[in-house]
This record gives sequence, structure tokens and C-alpha cells, in this order.
Amino acid sequence: MMRPMLEFWFDFASSYSYVASQRVEALCKEAGVPMRWRPFLLGPLFTAQLGIKDSPFNTQPVRGRYMWRDVERLCEKYGLPFKRPETFPQRSILAARVACVALEKPWCADFIRGVFRAEFGEGRDIATHAVLGDVLSSIGVDPAKVFPEAELDPVKRQLRAFTDEATALGVFGAPNAVVGKELFFGQDRLEDAIAWAKKHP
Amino acid sequence: MMRPMLEFWFDFASSYSYVASQRVEALCKEAGVPMRWRPFLLGPLFTAQLGIKDSPFNTQPVRGRYMWRDVERLCEKYGLPFKRPETFPQRSILAARVACVALEKPWCADFIRGVFRAEFGEGRDIATHAVLGDVLSSIGVDPAKVFPEAELDPVKRQLRAFTDEATALGVFGAPNAVVGKELFFGQDRLEDAIAWAKKHP
Repeated sequence: MMRPMLEFWFDFASSYSYVASQRVEALCKEAGVPMRWRPFLLGPLFTAQLGIKDSPFNTQPVRGRYMWRDVERLCEKYGLPFKRPETFPQRSILAARVACVALEKPWCADFIRGVFRAEFGEGRDIATHAVLGDVLSSIGVDPAKVFPEAELDPVKRQLRAFTDEATALGVFGAPNAVVGKELFFGQDRLEDAIAWAKKHP
Repeated sequence: MMRPMLEFWFDFASSYSYVASQRVEALCKEAGVPMRWRPFLLGPLFTAQLGIKDSPFNTQPVRGRYMWRDVERLCEKYGLPFKRPETFPQRSILAARVACVALEKPWCADFIRGVFRAEFGEGRDIATHAVLGDVLSSIGVDPAKVFPEAELDPVKRQLRAFTDEATALGVFGAPNAVVGKELFFGQDRLEDAIAWAKKHP
């Protein structure tokens, strides 16, 4: 029996995407559900849908305060390191472009998990080549080979296409799990998305 | 060992509160966690925090479309009836005042669950005395005795006090489970709130 694919749609700037990014592979593997990573940029969606140029967690401070406490609690629950970064949200475009390069590479998942862990587990700023280079080096990938590729036009177009596709899917935040035509929003719905994939082959 | 109380903070206008309202008692009972109901009004919070006089699910249609599909899916998951009401959000102030009257009565939980079920399970408009009267009658309570009490000043003040307390708790949506000083937002976090109550006696 072929189970439908679970697509994991995320933005490296998203705190709840951190928690989900560390869990999704193991959950899919255990359930026998194939998965793939889908990086996109939340910024254009927030601007189009909410008219803001910032995270809703900053424009709505009450929600922001809750989010940081909640992410801390979730990290405790799942045994993940947590250190609140000084900058939020962080510029995630370079990391997302490198992730686009990585999609067909065997180090894709390690890179994505590593970037999120640097940002929300160690509190580092992932906007820089220095931090992303550290992540790449730590998984045995040469940053000097990857960064030039991440700036090529087809890669930039790919990321824009993913962001357009996210919009078309009805995305309004991150992370999301998409199974067939079903969208599941939020890190706490990963299990529901997997259950859906198992029930609707 | 005395377990801490779980407070369930809800607005009758909230669709996700419907799903949670049908589940929370059984979950608490199974876990041996005492609970109590806390009705409040989301409207003043949305106005203060977002500057809107409507539900965010209406002002942000992409989120609204997702919410209706998601609630439908959750009702399927938990075996609850679902019928999308024509009006959303509904005026919940009368129902909330009756809930304030009900808090110390043995029919409190039946009333709250019944109102939510009429609204989101049967698609009825709970703003009216007629529909709330039907709910009261169906659980053996005389509406003619309850409605006058719901309009008394102490009851109105109680509801305003709950809404103020929700604000002070950092509430920005519904439903919420509050355990000690910990706020858990969203119907999908009931289990986490109960786990917290069991771990932090």
C-alpha cells in the first residue's frame, strides 16, 4: 500500500517550525509515511494577508509573550534545547535558498534541523553566512561550494515558487503539514496529519 | 495528592471552544484533575489587542477558510456533530451570562455543552432566548426562572470580571486551559494542560 506524501512547509524564521522540524522525520518514519521538506517565506504572506511587515508575535505582544513561554514548554516536553534568540524574526531568505539547494542532496534534513537548532536551540542569528557556514561544516558540507549555488537564479525562482505554492495551498502561518489536499497548520497537528495520511491512502 | 485545578476559559462564539467543550470534562475526569468553567467575552480582547470588531477568522479570510475545514475534521476525529452556522461569530453575551448563573448549579456543564452543540453541531443561532430556552428545557431547567437572573447586575459584573481576568492571564483567543500560572491556548493543547496538572501537583 502506497501512503500519500506528507509535505512539511516551514519558514526558518518560525519558532514553532523549530519544534516541528526536530520531530517530523521520526514521526513519518515510524508511521511509514514518506515526507518532503518545503521551505517558503512567511513575510510576503503576512504582508498580503495582514498588512504587516513583522511577525504577528511582535505586532500582537500578548500572543508573542505566550508563544515564547509555549515554545520553551514544548522544548521541555520533547527534550529539545531552547535559547531565545535576541533577534526575532530573523532574516531567513539565505537559509531558505540553501535549503532549496539541499532538497535533492543527502544532507538536506541534517541542514534544516541544524539551522533551526542553531537559531532556537543556541540562540544564534541564522541570517549570516558565518552561522549557516558553521551548520554546513558541522554536517561535512563545504560552504564555499554551496553558497554560490544558493545565489543562482533558478534557486531564487524555486523559493519564490514555493512561496507562491504555499499561498495557493491556503497557508497563513508555519509550520504546516500538507497531505493530499489537506492542510494541517501548527506544530501540534503533525500527528493529525500523519493519521490522515494513514487513513487516506 | 491534590492535583491543581484546570480552568477552561471559553467564549460561546468560538468554534474551537465547541470541540474542546465536548472533550474537556472527560479528559479531566480520566486524569483525576478537577476542573471549572470560565466563560468570558473575546470581543473586548480582540478590540484591545487587534483593533478589530469582528473575528480574526473573518478579517483574515484565508485563516477563516482553514478554520472551518479544520473544525469539520476535528469533529469527525472526535465523533461530534458539525453544522456550520450561518452567522459567525454569534452574539454570545446572553449565553455567557446564563453560564455565569449556572456556575454553581448542577446543570452547568450540561448547559455549556448543550449551547455549543446547538450552535456548531446543529447550526443554530445562540444569541436568542428561544434557542437558549430550548437548551435549558432540554436539560430540565425552567428558562423563565433563569433568564431574569441572567440580567441581574451581579451576573453582568461577574462576566465582566471574568473577561478582565482573562486579559490579566494573557489570553488572546479561545479556548484556553489554565493550570496554576500556565496558560495553554487552543483546543489541541488540552492534553498538554492535563499532563502539566499531573506533573505539577
